Amino acid sequence: MDQSVGIVTTEYATFDVELPLESGRLLGSPLTLAYETYGCLNSSRSNAILVTHAWTGDAHAAGKHTPDDRKPGWWDDMIGPGKVLDTDRYFIVCSNVIGSCGGSTGPTSINPRTNRPYRLNFPVIMVRDMVRAQKLLIDHLGLDSLLTVIGGSMGAMQALEWGVLYPETVRSIIPIAGTGRTSPMAIALNALARQAIFNDPLWKKGNYKPEHPPAEGLALGRAVGHISFLSDASMNLKFGRRFSARDGMFDFFGQFEVERYLEYNGRNFIDRFDTNAFLYLAKALDLYDVAWDFANREEALSRIDCPSLWFAFSSDWLYPPQQSEEMVTLLKKLDKPVEYHLIDSDYGHDSFLIEPEKFTPLISAFLDRLATS
Amino acid sequence: MDQSVGIVTTEYATFDVELPLESGRLLGSPLTLAYETYGCLNSSRSNAILVTHAWTGDAHAAGKHTPDDRKPGWWDDMIGPGKVLDTDRYFIVCSNVIGSCGGSTGPTSINPRTNRPYRLNFPVIMVRDMVRAQKLLIDHLGLDSLLTVIGGSMGAMQALEWGVLYPETVRSIIPIAGTGRTSPMAIALNALARQAIFNDPLWKKGNYKPEHPPAEGLALGRAVGHISFLSDASMNLKFGRRFSARDGMFDFFGQFEVERYLEYNGRNFIDRFDTNAFLYLAKALDLYDVAWDFANREEALSRIDCPSLWFAFSSDWLYPPQQSEEMVTLLKKLDKPVEYHLIDSDYGHDSFLIEPEKFTPLISAFLDRLATS
Repeated sequence: MDQSVGIVTTEYATFDVELPLESGRLLGSPLTLAYETYGCLNSSRSNAILVTHAWTGDAHAAGKHTPDDRKPGWWDDMIGPGKVLDTDRYFIVCSNVIGSCGGSTGPTSINPRTNRPYRLNFPVIMVRDMVRAQKLLIDHLGLDSLLTVIGGSMGAMQALEWGVLYPETVRSIIPIAGTGRTSPMAIALNALARQAIFNDPLWKKGNYKPEHPPAEGLALGRAVGHISFLSDASMNLKFGRRFSARDGMFDFFGQFEVERYLEYNGRNFIDRFDTNAFLYLAKALDLYDVAWDFANREEALSRIDCPSLWFAFSSDWLYPPQQSEEMVTLLKKLDKPVEYHLIDSDYGHDSFLIEPEKFTPLISAFLDRLATS
Repeated sequence: MDQSVGIVTTEYATFDVELPLESGRLLGSPLTLAYETYGCLNSSRSNAILVTHAWTGDAHAAGKHTPDDRKPGWWDDMIGPGKVLDTDRYFIVCSNVIGSCGGSTGPTSINPRTNRPYRLNFPVIMVRDMVRAQKLLIDHLGLDSLLTVIGGSMGAMQALEWGVLYPETVRSIIPIAGTGRTSPMAIALNALARQAIFNDPLWKKGNYKPEHPPAEGLALGRAVGHISFLSDASMNLKFGRRFSARDGMFDFFGQFEVERYLEYNGRNFIDRFDTNAFLYLAKALDLYDVAWDFANREEALSRIDCPSLWFAFSSDWLYPPQQSEEMVTLLKKLDKPVEYHLIDSDYGHDSFLIEPEKFTPLISAFLDRLATS
């Protein structure tokens, strides 16, 4: 497997702590984080990079778990020998966020107080809580410095929170397709996804059996998200107005190709994601505001003590470029070293997954400058 | 009621015809159109204007049905004495489209072959079929000429179809926030709305009882549409990130204001719209392509034999300005008289309902020029 990190294994770190959450509740003990690492830590422990994932991502960012895996990890284009996050040079860590369902403590985990799955007894968490949990892992791995924290979408929010919360640890942050606070449009879209699930009688207020999830509701909720990750241009390129070849155009249930694709994608999603985790993460996205618990955004951003590199995509209408630009403007006003690139891409919010070649050279140059500074 | 057309009544014209549809099926007999008229026809029968409505609109465009009505017709800002569609000068006709539920033949009507409501036996219709049915009404009213056909969104599609189908009848068309063909993004959004309804067990493949409609599904379907009619900017203005005062921020079911608003609006919609009609009209929107049954768009547009006046709105992401501009460019290439205005508005697709004052002076000038030409 050329340029691949090869076969990798998800590891688990379990902490005997009760993590204080922004809500005032405690999470744990135990608190488990699933994570993967790629590459080797150097002797000066100065080459660690934390990769943070988006809504439905997980710890498996690169390589394969078995040679037969159909697909590699979600950012395999970015991580590996000779790639921008070069495993010959860097030690890469990616951990599944709390609240998710990829091995870290989330609504499917056992609530130690009841010995039953949390389900809706899981506390509402914020992105800041995810980052606090990650800090436990980074400490556990003996990393007192991170060369960078890099991620797209919800991953960008985590990168930003790392800069604000742990300025003594991070030497740079790279938020891609991010935002300083979720807009009402993005919240409204998440509300549709939520309602699609709430409307499914199988959801049972979160008490569905794992083998009988609210499949229709989750598939529709995913489809809402999916549309917001794409763009008019990318859908035109991929589907245009083609009508499904097997349907009659005047059949009431006849589908356009775009429609069939969304349905197919939504149904695949059911097998790989837990419905309650999907809802908890949607909530965390909605609640995201870097100014949370600070007087304002300036006060939050003034804590950042490292260079930041921002990317936004021209066709991203979920977190449009303007939202990154607001943050960049504020950082400049605060005299923070900041670099921003608006990348011309037709692939909407998902551009960070689909066209990395458009921004990886800029990341390589940035990391090279950091390493020599 | 100053500047109002006052108390109006919906009228019904029933035709003993079987209308041939684009699908090859026949609709009728009988075929009924609900309509309202405002103002008086002049002796030369040269002052008639047809107003065409959007997805969930109806024949009631202006005035009130009773003095106690909470709201006037849907385009009351535009229609009345001294307004841009001046009832002191023009004879205004607005008819409910076929396939809808506002009195014209639609899925709630009685199928003459079974003596039971059509429900899903109603044929799939296209915007072109709606216009053919309107032509029956216009003939019935003795109007052999329309000064203009004007409408927004699906109304713009009808205006365009009038120009293409009946060049001998229309003296101008005014498509507002329209498109020459529905984009895959718009289709994808309609697919979400559809699926929201299909997922509701009360839908019963269209065989719900009128008193037990699939309320949850329809409310969610409407919310999908609603979001696409708004814009990031308008939601920021109206809601920002305000959290519902009565909910706790860390309640799993706590709502942002924007979320509560969408839910409230969706629930109100249930009482005024039939679910199957909503689905049939979504289908008609998806199928819309002015080039349908022509070799291409140029061939369709070459049939237009009158001036056209186009408006698009800067923040409309459902039918973005580019889609109107494509049509305007084609019309210019064909040497058709065409006027286009990109209106700067924060209210998204719904700007045609919310900020008419931004474009009505341009319509007045256009109509004045027409009347004297």
